[in-house]
Amino acid sequence: MASNSSARRRFLKSTFAIAGLAATKQSATGQAPRAAPKDLRTYGERSRFESAGRKGSLGLWPPAAGPIRDYGIRTPLQNSVGMLTPASLHFVLSHGYDPPDIDPHEHRLLIHGMVDRPLIFTLEDLQRLPSVSRLHFLECHGNSATSGPTGALRIAPTATVQETHGLTSCSEWSGVLLSVLLREAGVQKGASWLVAEGSDRIKHTKSIPLNKAMEDVLVAYGQNGEPLRPEQGYPLRLVVPGWQGISNVKWLRRIKVVDEPYMAMMESTRYPSVRPDGKSRWFESEMGPKSVITRPSGGQKLPGPGFYEITGLAWSGGGAIRRVEVSSDGGRTWKDARLQGPVASKAHTRFGLDWNWDGSEVVLQSRCTDEKGVVQPTIAEVAKIWGVKMDYFQMTSTIDIGNFNAIQPWKITRDGGVHNALL
Amino acid sequence: MASNSSARRRFLKSTFAIAGLAATKQSATGQAPRAAPKDLRTYGERSRFESAGRKGSLGLWPPAAGPIRDYGIRTPLQNSVGMLTPASLHFVLSHGYDPPDIDPHEHRLLIHGMVDRPLIFTLEDLQRLPSVSRLHFLECHGNSATSGPTGALRIAPTATVQETHGLTSCSEWSGVLLSVLLREAGVQKGASWLVAEGSDRIKHTKSIPLNKAMEDVLVAYGQNGEPLRPEQGYPLRLVVPGWQGISNVKWLRRIKVVDEPYMAMMESTRYPSVRPDGKSRWFESEMGPKSVITRPSGGQKLPGPGFYEITGLAWSGGGAIRRVEVSSDGGRTWKDARLQGPVASKAHTRFGLDWNWDGSEVVLQSRCTDEKGVVQPTIAEVAKIWGVKMDYFQMTSTIDIGNFNAIQPWKITRDGGVHNALL
Repeated sequence: MASNSSARRRFLKSTFAIAGLAATKQSATGQAPRAAPKDLRTYGERSRFESAGRKGSLGLWPPAAGPIRDYGIRTPLQNSVGMLTPASLHFVLSHGYDPPDIDPHEHRLLIHGMVDRPLIFTLEDLQRLPSVSRLHFLECHGNSATSGPTGALRIAPTATVQETHGLTSCSEWSGVLLSVLLREAGVQKGASWLVAEGSDRIKHTKSIPLNKAMEDVLVAYGQNGEPLRPEQGYPLRLVVPGWQGISNVKWLRRIKVVDEPYMAMMESTRYPSVRPDGKSRWFESEMGPKSVITRPSGGQKLPGPGFYEITGLAWSGGGAIRRVEVSSDGGRTWKDARLQGPVASKAHTRFGLDWNWDGSEVVLQSRCTDEKGVVQPTIAEVAKIWGVKMDYFQMTSTIDIGNFNAIQPWKITRDGGVHNALL
Repeated sequence: MASNSSARRRFLKSTFAIAGLAATKQSATGQAPRAAPKDLRTYGERSRFESAGRKGSLGLWPPAAGPIRDYGIRTPLQNSVGMLTPASLHFVLSHGYDPPDIDPHEHRLLIHGMVDRPLIFTLEDLQRLPSVSRLHFLECHGNSATSGPTGALRIAPTATVQETHGLTSCSEWSGVLLSVLLREAGVQKGASWLVAEGSDRIKHTKSIPLNKAMEDVLVAYGQNGEPLRPEQGYPLRLVVPGWQGISNVKWLRRIKVVDEPYMAMMESTRYPSVRPDGKSRWFESEMGPKSVITRPSGGQKLPGPGFYEITGLAWSGGGAIRRVEVSSDGGRTWKDARLQGPVASKAHTRFGLDWNWDGSEVVLQSRCTDEKGVVQPTIAEVAKIWGVKMDYFQMTSTIDIGNFNAIQPWKITRDGGVHNALL
């Protein structure tokens, strides 16, 4: 990624009067063509022979009681190629069910709290500001976890990679750096956090440290070259690179600059990972290095011995992926995989390794190392780091285990079947 | 992009028997989930408030006589953000009209001619081979040309950037390097070209030099993380990076290794650019450096004086974009624009420049420089290079001018209107 920091500073020192800009009511680019009746030519569709789809679960939370309906649908990683996820297949994890139906011309973003100049932006205002585009993954903090509401599904020997790891996706996000907006608003001394709020039914709220906000957080209006999809926060969302999904507030309407975390519902009652001793991990924001083999993966079947490329995805909230190793002997020896370009910071990176299967039973697994040198752990190493016993990973209660990034083993049996071998 | 060349060589030296692989009939990954009835969850759609669409033209060629129907639909670049084009909005230029309706399980790719071992691949065979993914633009050789069937539309003062430049798009393409397949087939001494053939109604055929084929040509099955769209050659196409669109044979079914170009219909009767003196430019394969401002652009309207980001796209068949300059005074002075990441070879690169509009009449334009140091020319410079007079660019006959890459000026009038100012 090219650094724009010096140009950004020039922009911020200019006399650009944002108040006047924010008052703009007309569209700067109001000439978008009206679509003809939907057909193949105006907005194309995929082949009728293709059926890869997201698979969802709809739950109630608190279980069977509360008013909040969870909406979790997973990306079919077993069908993925390259490092991008099509917007139509991006995972969705929502609390409050249906995406709000927002008219972009009516939508506003308010920045207030500990600032010198509270600001209100229309979408058109934001699109006049210096833009950036970044390749970043988003991942639910519960992705690949063995416990919680979907734990049984995830640890089943029949689990597919969609079921084990489908709550991560990667896009090109376009928008404005939040730091640009905060500098225009003038952050006051003593401010250290911000609280971001969405327009969804439960007004999802998340506390984010100010230093992260100033580092690389995006107020995004674009995804993979077009406006965000409704399920991804249309018309505006936060993208908090490398941090757990819940931070990436969708349908963004308000940012309040404050001096402490607000302990909002999703960060105080659900997302802390409770340990057996009653203690919890709170604000475990950055996602650790993680990788998974997508081909061959659970539920697939090798037609017979011979040559295969072993391929999969690696990513880390700590930055760029530097190395992916693959073992085809249950973890005794490891070989370096090829990294496919582009290799971007806090983005999915596709890897591949040539492999000849001799027809015997084998266990395949991948592990990655990020630019900080952090290596993806085995499940036994995760247990040690977290100070828990192995049975912690099989609690099929409603306790969520967040930021679980253990190595995923796939066992290939002599008949070519591929099976989940994590536990 | 990471280079895989050393790993590739290791693969090619192995004893991997491709004949056995090519005979595989079963699916290696036959477990794709069947889609539920189409709904928002399985395969998402865009907001009902979004209507940006491709706009098409359907013509007969030879004009009003021949049996071939042209199908040209343009990407709405005025709505673009970032460097990617959504597959649904990728431009289409087809001779022969409707995309063939191909069952991927029935499709085969034959490699034959001057090779030691003719090979037939199924799609599943290809997906077992070492894969690569690359960010590349595709551009019709007639994109932004002032002459030919759509010349009048393109040079009109009211032209939008979709009308002037909409026959270019950029994707992440995934597949197998053609060099891998050719090495497995064993190219014979004396071979110097290949002829690629599609499965469409007119069996589109294109001659490609062997050295280009061995350099970076892809046999692609993936686009932006999912299978190719039908209009982009589903299930298999050539991607010939940086070369004119017509080389990127869609619905690819056959590659014959030969020792001379075959002068197929589209390369002998239509795509050579005829000059007024009767001479033609033949096999003008590589697209030169080109850029265009997408915001503000033709047909848009600035709501009033104030701050705007000038943004657009730059690309070159010669490699990566190294520099984009923007002039807001009709070409007298130029400022360096920011390049947004990722900046990939032979790919669209998004640029941006901060600008304060004072409300006076101005002409905006961009010019780019690629990694070879080649600078995008003005239209007067193009005329000089081609040895033609300026009136050559206004011939609204059926003569196509290929590979036209002149600087595109947009005039902004005092009312904020943006107008095509090329001629």
